Amino acid sequence: MSEGGATIGIDLGGTRMRVGRRDGRGGLIAERALSPAGAEEGVAQLVALARRIAPEGVARVGVSAAGPLDFATGVIVPLNMPGWHHYPLVAELSRQLDAAVVMDNDANVAALGEWREGAGRGTRTMVYYTVSTGVGSGVILEGRIHHGAHDTEGGHQVVWPNGPVCGCGNRGCLEAVVSGTGIRNRTGKRGEEIDDPAFWDEIAFYLAVGVANTANLLCPEAIILGGGITARGDQLFVPLREKAAGMIRILPVPRIEPSGLGQDSGLVGALVLAETSAEC
Amino acid sequence: MSEGGATIGIDLGGTRMRVGRRDGRGGLIAERALSPAGAEEGVAQLVALARRIAPEGVARVGVSAAGPLDFATGVIVPLNMPGWHHYPLVAELSRQLDAAVVMDNDANVAALGEWREGAGRGTRTMVYYTVSTGVGSGVILEGRIHHGAHDTEGGHQVVWPNGPVCGCGNRGCLEAVVSGTGIRNRTGKRGEEIDDPAFWDEIAFYLAVGVANTANLLCPEAIILGGGITARGDQLFVPLREKAAGMIRILPVPRIEPSGLGQDSGLVGALVLAETSAEC
Repeated sequence: MSEGGATIGIDLGGTRMRVGRRDGRGGLIAERALSPAGAEEGVAQLVALARRIAPEGVARVGVSAAGPLDFATGVIVPLNMPGWHHYPLVAELSRQLDAAVVMDNDANVAALGEWREGAGRGTRTMVYYTVSTGVGSGVILEGRIHHGAHDTEGGHQVVWPNGPVCGCGNRGCLEAVVSGTGIRNRTGKRGEEIDDPAFWDEIAFYLAVGVANTANLLCPEAIILGGGITARGDQLFVPLREKAAGMIRILPVPRIEPSGLGQDSGLVGALVLAETSAEC
Repeated sequence: MSEGGATIGIDLGGTRMRVGRRDGRGGLIAERALSPAGAEEGVAQLVALARRIAPEGVARVGVSAAGPLDFATGVIVPLNMPGWHHYPLVAELSRQLDAAVVMDNDANVAALGEWREGAGRGTRTMVYYTVSTGVGSGVILEGRIHHGAHDTEGGHQVVWPNGPVCGCGNRGCLEAVVSGTGIRNRTGKRGEEIDDPAFWDEIAFYLAVGVANTANLLCPEAIILGGGITARGDQLFVPLREKAAGMIRILPVPRIEPSGLGQDSGLVGALVLAETSAEC
């Protein structure tokens, strides 16, 4: 391992991948590429990008990867990337870069980024949801990702018992109701195509159920929501906060905020993951 | 403080109070009394019981108290005990017994007891529900009660959106649907009076929603359920496990078990609370 080498972050998504590092002035230097269909070509590109932004060598790498993934083996099985299935991503990056590599799934890593440098700064208990094609969640307790026995999957809590069928096989998961896929399955349209206020009021209602459940089960100081579906901003967050406050009656209502880092939450989180794992 | 004195546990409920200690052979020695209406008389009795079971003096006390309570000040506001409202229980016990006193609410303390010596032994993440007059919850992470920003209130997660009105003012909380109070409000009967299998199937269904949400948000190895409503045993747990397994599709299904300590979970938990706080 290149002692004295750089700490870099990798955000590996289904369509794009980014490699970044700190610029020493509170900002990021990042390179990006389209994610190749095959894992070997992809890792070759990631390694090339890493060497370009860290010519002095790489000591530590944090990786945000689309799930599912196996924390013990560092093997990934990203749902929409068949050419990467069962690829030993951690082992290959570690070997080719001669670096210490830590990996977690995209929602967990984005949560860590939001906790340290985004909308969740200063909290001890924080939950992040990404509401996008699916719904992912990350739970941060005292600055660490909480996995429990395996991992959290807040997108598969039930917010509508006996409701719409979810990709997981259950009915009425948060993901089946409010995600891009859920919206398309329920309405035949993409979220961007829908302007009916009653529809968005319904989305805010079911998100509020998810937020209320999260508040009651974990009592976080903040619940942060990112991802494409949350891009409506106040049109979503104003009714969401109002409805959630109506459902959380025993406990203080947590802050309910949009992502502070937006598209950078994964890359920043990957850097924080590498930095905090080095602290151990 | 009596160094070398005994460690005792106090379980203070709305109708009964118990004071106990270990007997050195894996069992408990306990004294009980009816909870007096007034706090001063109650504490005098608790102190007398403590001195009777610990004639050598008391060094440490763990208290399980009906909530709500204020963790910072040790003041309690038990819902059904108006004569104890705003009483500085921790300060008074500490002064009168010359002992270190730690207190937490009944569901959290019972959770700790179940984790250490009951049905949750060996877990790193565990959640306990008491399904009784109300529904309380306790979350144990790495052997400690998780309070988050204030405390967890899993009984007030929403399992039936727009469902029955809850005592908290919200609709469709787990407590409003499956607790003794909820059952009475919904049916006009006490749970013990209802034999209709369809009714208990519905209770199992909504408990399963709560269990599935807990699994997805915290990913515990075990979810333990105690309290009077769970006394039906297999009649409740068999359909509950089946329905929960149908709703938890992405993650491993946690163990779903009845309380291992039953009526003793609070007293054992109070002892564990005192013992583990002494380890810090």
